Amino acid sequence: MIDEQEPTPDETPRPGLSRRGLFGLAAGVGAAGLALGAGGGAVAATAIARSGTGGSSVHPFFGEHQAGITTPMQDHLHFAAFDVMAGTDRADLQSLLQDWSYAAARMTQGLEVSATGAVGGSPEAPPDDTGEALGLPASGLTITLGFGPTLFRAEDGTDRFGLANLRPRALEKLPAFLGDDLDPAVSNGDLCIQACADDPQVAVHAVRNLSRIAFGRARLRWSQLGFGKTSKTTAAQATPRNLFGFKDGTANILADDATALADHVWVAEDDEPAWLAGGSYLVARKVAMLIETWDRVRLSEQQRIIGRDKSEGAPLSGGREATAPDFAKKDAAGTPAIDAASHVRLAHPDLNDGIRILRRGYNYVDGNTALGRLDAGLFFLSYQRSPEQFVTLQRALSGDLMNEYVRHVASGLWAVPRGARDGSFVGAELFA
Amino acid sequence: MIDEQEPTPDETPRPGLSRRGLFGLAAGVGAAGLALGAGGGAVAATAIARSGTGGSSVHPFFGEHQAGITTPMQDHLHFAAFDVMAGTDRADLQSLLQDWSYAAARMTQGLEVSATGAVGGSPEAPPDDTGEALGLPASGLTITLGFGPTLFRAEDGTDRFGLANLRPRALEKLPAFLGDDLDPAVSNGDLCIQACADDPQVAVHAVRNLSRIAFGRARLRWSQLGFGKTSKTTAAQATPRNLFGFKDGTANILADDATALADHVWVAEDDEPAWLAGGSYLVARKVAMLIETWDRVRLSEQQRIIGRDKSEGAPLSGGREATAPDFAKKDAAGTPAIDAASHVRLAHPDLNDGIRILRRGYNYVDGNTALGRLDAGLFFLSYQRSPEQFVTLQRALSGDLMNEYVRHVASGLWAVPRGARDGSFVGAELFA
Repeated sequence: MIDEQEPTPDETPRPGLSRRGLFGLAAGVGAAGLALGAGGGAVAATAIARSGTGGSSVHPFFGEHQAGITTPMQDHLHFAAFDVMAGTDRADLQSLLQDWSYAAARMTQGLEVSATGAVGGSPEAPPDDTGEALGLPASGLTITLGFGPTLFRAEDGTDRFGLANLRPRALEKLPAFLGDDLDPAVSNGDLCIQACADDPQVAVHAVRNLSRIAFGRARLRWSQLGFGKTSKTTAAQATPRNLFGFKDGTANILADDATALADHVWVAEDDEPAWLAGGSYLVARKVAMLIETWDRVRLSEQQRIIGRDKSEGAPLSGGREATAPDFAKKDAAGTPAIDAASHVRLAHPDLNDGIRILRRGYNYVDGNTALGRLDAGLFFLSYQRSPEQFVTLQRALSGDLMNEYVRHVASGLWAVPRGARDGSFVGAELFA
Repeated sequence: MIDEQEPTPDETPRPGLSRRGLFGLAAGVGAAGLALGAGGGAVAATAIARSGTGGSSVHPFFGEHQAGITTPMQDHLHFAAFDVMAGTDRADLQSLLQDWSYAAARMTQGLEVSATGAVGGSPEAPPDDTGEALGLPASGLTITLGFGPTLFRAEDGTDRFGLANLRPRALEKLPAFLGDDLDPAVSNGDLCIQACADDPQVAVHAVRNLSRIAFGRARLRWSQLGFGKTSKTTAAQATPRNLFGFKDGTANILADDATALADHVWVAEDDEPAWLAGGSYLVARKVAMLIETWDRVRLSEQQRIIGRDKSEGAPLSGGREATAPDFAKKDAAGTPAIDAASHVRLAHPDLNDGIRILRRGYNYVDGNTALGRLDAGLFFLSYQRSPEQFVTLQRALSGDLMNEYVRHVASGLWAVPRGARDGSFVGAELFA
């Protein structure tokens, strides 16, 4: 019924480039290529600003580190994992990362994906931008890109993009953990995009448009929406509550703690591989919470499991939320104030050789299960200098009292490269 | 492993009352019963306020009409449908509605579900409130309750609650429409709750706690999260955009248009049945949008389908967004400026005997399909004085050009009673 746009003769797809790459974004991406080659400035100079109402945060896209890691947590998350499609070669992968960086740089500044956007192009072509964020401000949008183990070496061992020798040694599929109940359909992926914004429509718009830009080169494998934050990432922020009703992330690494970030989050110059310096490793775990069961547990038991009181978030050894837990403290009967198998104790750096990670997870609710229970939980995200930090902590939690009430249903690990240099693109180091 | 709370001897469940009803909310619901019987005031007088930061809207729960209909659209939706469980009798249903109203009245004022809440009860009992909204303000929360056809007469014809003679004649399952592809698992329901708030955690908290209060009496059948609004409900509000990137709801009934509300939204005193006067009918339709296909359609065609321009939302007959469409206008070649099969024309009151409805739908994204496409669309909600208004409009849309790009996957109809009188409960008229 409806005439869709068909290629005109002089837009015949070239081998290795998708029709989509030529089309919808022909103008935008062409300009991007030029602009990036010319050393940047294209994004700031663009005429069409999407932002209508202003007044919200704008985070720079270019810089030493990718935004979205130490950026104060925004209210909403849309996370997406992609698989690079068969027939896509090294040059296509590079152009995809260039196109993504170009569009991400624009969208994070409150602009449309290209200069013509949703309404400025030819009426006889599909618009470059899908348009649902027109009139909305940048809304603190950050877009963070990551590379999964399979990008460097496919599961069958193939080196699809000539990147095998650049694979970080630690970038392996995460090991199995006690109690894992993982669904491969919503785990892993060659590439990932973490889009965070204070307006969910802006985060969704970003993932939708980046998926569209990837058409014919990479395909959305799975995606997850989240809200409400579960981790404190700046000192000024009140600690948010997770769906167990407890404050979470009290002892997180804060964005202004440069020493802790250098020690625990950023891959250092003398770590390997060199190209990942200034980057990090991202772990995603979808942790379903059995909230109906939890809700029937008495308050004292809930607090024993967590190791903190529900009201203030103070450790059960006393004090306030910020007070360090005293694991040696005992009551008159000689029982430890903080249970040895409590979550706070088993996850604590003091019990784990000082290991820390930067958490920035979100709550999720995916409707309900067939049993009429809310399908809800924590979409755990953490950044660390090495995956080993997460693995050590997760193993330490194998005896966690909380395990009775959670189920890990999805998992993924990605290497997150340093931020793009002005006018370059995320991952440029791989193609140097 | 974990000791869950077990009933003590003097808390033996009574027939027809759930263990849950006695337990978690024993204190709260008992107090509610007293307070409601005594003519209200309990909610305002309660000592424990949940609200920590303040500064957000608070909407009254009691009043002539239920809140959440003409209330300016909040940013987030959690909609839930419930089925009353076998073994639940008329008295149980009444007590459920009382308990729901009590908790809803409190939560909409930024309070916990009961006076003891998440942390104020006995440490040896499960808390009344699940706690994840502790410290969050009311966030404009409204909770709107509705009664489905099956509450009055089960599908097998049974009159489970002695309400069959009170069934509104128009409260029947909606008829099948051309192109329906409905999933019964996410359609209909004996009861529904529309929770809207500016913070998704507050909306989710409301549905979760109301589900919990219903334990043993009604079971969550399905639920849906939404965001971003798709309808303009006040003159001050900028018209939001749907996931096709177009402004939507331009010609909606606005909250301050008392005449239009009386004519098109509120059930009148001399409509039938008498108990529904001051109420309305709520239609919910989950409309999946084939956005990847839509995104490949050229701009001129997208605009022809909608009948408006994408940038301003102006009708294609000219003018600005607020300009009335001129369906008679033709271009030089004699072609109508607004296509006869465009969405704006087929849905317009002028083409439908002046029929109008109050829309307050939300965008949704439920992750993605197995094909790697975003599972996204519009969760359409409309309020009308009679379901016939919706049926007429939906039939008029059977030739809508937009149908090529949408699929109706879920549907429901509920009678929404008037607002609770101060100290009473929603639906009290059914038990008078």
